[in-house]
Amino acid sequence: MSHPDAVIHDRATGVAADTVAKHAEAQPLVFYAGWFCPFVQRSWIALEEKGVPYQYKEVNPYKKEPHFLAINPKGLVPSAEVHGKALYESLVLNEFFEDFFPDAPKLLPEDPVEKARARIWIDYIAKTIVPAFMRLVMAQDPAEQSKLLNDYYDALKKYAEQIAPGGPYFLGPKFSLVDATIAPWVVRDYIITEHRGYTRSAAGEAWEKYSQAIETRDSIVNTASEKQYYAQIYARYLKNEAMSEFAKALRQGKSF
Amino acid sequence: MSHPDAVIHDRATGVAADTVAKHAEAQPLVFYAGWFCPFVQRSWIALEEKGVPYQYKEVNPYKKEPHFLAINPKGLVPSAEVHGKALYESLVLNEFFEDFFPDAPKLLPEDPVEKARARIWIDYIAKTIVPAFMRLVMAQDPAEQSKLLNDYYDALKKYAEQIAPGGPYFLGPKFSLVDATIAPWVVRDYIITEHRGYTRSAAGEAWEKYSQAIETRDSIVNTASEKQYYAQIYARYLKNEAMSEFAKALRQGKSF
Repeated sequence: MSHPDAVIHDRATGVAADTVAKHAEAQPLVFYAGWFCPFVQRSWIALEEKGVPYQYKEVNPYKKEPHFLAINPKGLVPSAEVHGKALYESLVLNEFFEDFFPDAPKLLPEDPVEKARARIWIDYIAKTIVPAFMRLVMAQDPAEQSKLLNDYYDALKKYAEQIAPGGPYFLGPKFSLVDATIAPWVVRDYIITEHRGYTRSAAGEAWEKYSQAIETRDSIVNTASEKQYYAQIYARYLKNEAMSEFAKALRQGKSF
Repeated sequence: MSHPDAVIHDRATGVAADTVAKHAEAQPLVFYAGWFCPFVQRSWIALEEKGVPYQYKEVNPYKKEPHFLAINPKGLVPSAEVHGKALYESLVLNEFFEDFFPDAPKLLPEDPVEKARARIWIDYIAKTIVPAFMRLVMAQDPAEQSKLLNDYYDALKKYAEQIAPGGPYFLGPKFSLVDATIAPWVVRDYIITEHRGYTRSAAGEAWEKYSQAIETRDSIVNTASEKQYYAQIYARYLKNEAMSEFAKALRQGKSF
């Protein structure tokens, strides 16, 4: 029996489809992606920001196709294949791109203290903001939804307090991996606006301005598919029926 | 009212006390530590491996002393203070030491692909092994303990399969941040042996040999206090009464 989440649109659409088309040629770095996956977009944004050569390969992680499983037994996207070796985990990949393309624009500060501070907030996004977003999406009880919406605002406000004065990005004028790490949940926030009563302004002016800067950035626009296709994916999360590894981990109270 | 975990022995003992004494002098890098905390030991091991200058300052994170909160509002250990800036999160600190002391021995591979692979397994320890250990310690129901013990063995076996052939360390002859990341839970495993029926050999020969190599490594021996003092700390975890941030996060099904 096929995986219940396996019946999804099989390719990127809209602007993202053009970006995919530009990266069809074979390259030493193969980027295994699912157009709909926010963790994929996190690393895809990093590749686009760096402007490095990569081959985009669409994979449905729920179908676990043999050619993909052969190089990556974990079968998760995003993955990267380099010299026959598979690497995975979006945040590890983003650090890998920094190391593997030393001549491309850096997405982390050079100064070790500033770099560590960037990593602290990347960690905060991964451990606090993203799980708070997904809990809110998956919650079914209205009272629980209301509590989780407030939790999400609290998490965003704490982040927004740390945005460099004047912005527009987290560390200042320069876009960084901190922004890439949170961006997929900014561009998908219309889902919680439509279904959970979220508004950007309720998280404060700094967050609202930052969200605007994020969603209009080229690398983010160019890796986003048409909204109607995301809606199909999120319909399952909104009913708490999604069976992705992330959804399962959250339900079991496990880290992802 | 003071925090229920605040009544703990206030300093390192045994070999760790000697290491603390060697690092009493002021240095540009201040390492804020709690002698009992496995996350602290993770970063303390890295500092010892690098052989860099640092000043050790003992902090009881449950008491949140003003001088510590002033530099680090989050009030968590391990923390590092450099040029008046506070950094925290054990894994971020370990990467920071790599960047901040470029002439000290490296604890991550130079090759970007190998470096990424090391980070994948560091991530695995953080998200899978450590929470599995703590769930096992905190579980009260015997049937649940038995299930969680098997989960822990499964998590360890998957890790052990990836240890470099011939070892002795995860990446081979050279000790790395992967080893530093898991070490505190190796040297504390007598707690689950005494109270939850764990044996190293049940996780396989590779794991048993690896555990031996880890617990006899100088940097790990030199950052370990006397066992009787750890027992006081773990008594609360074993009754599921601990109120550390980690214990609370695990109970709520949140990432830490």
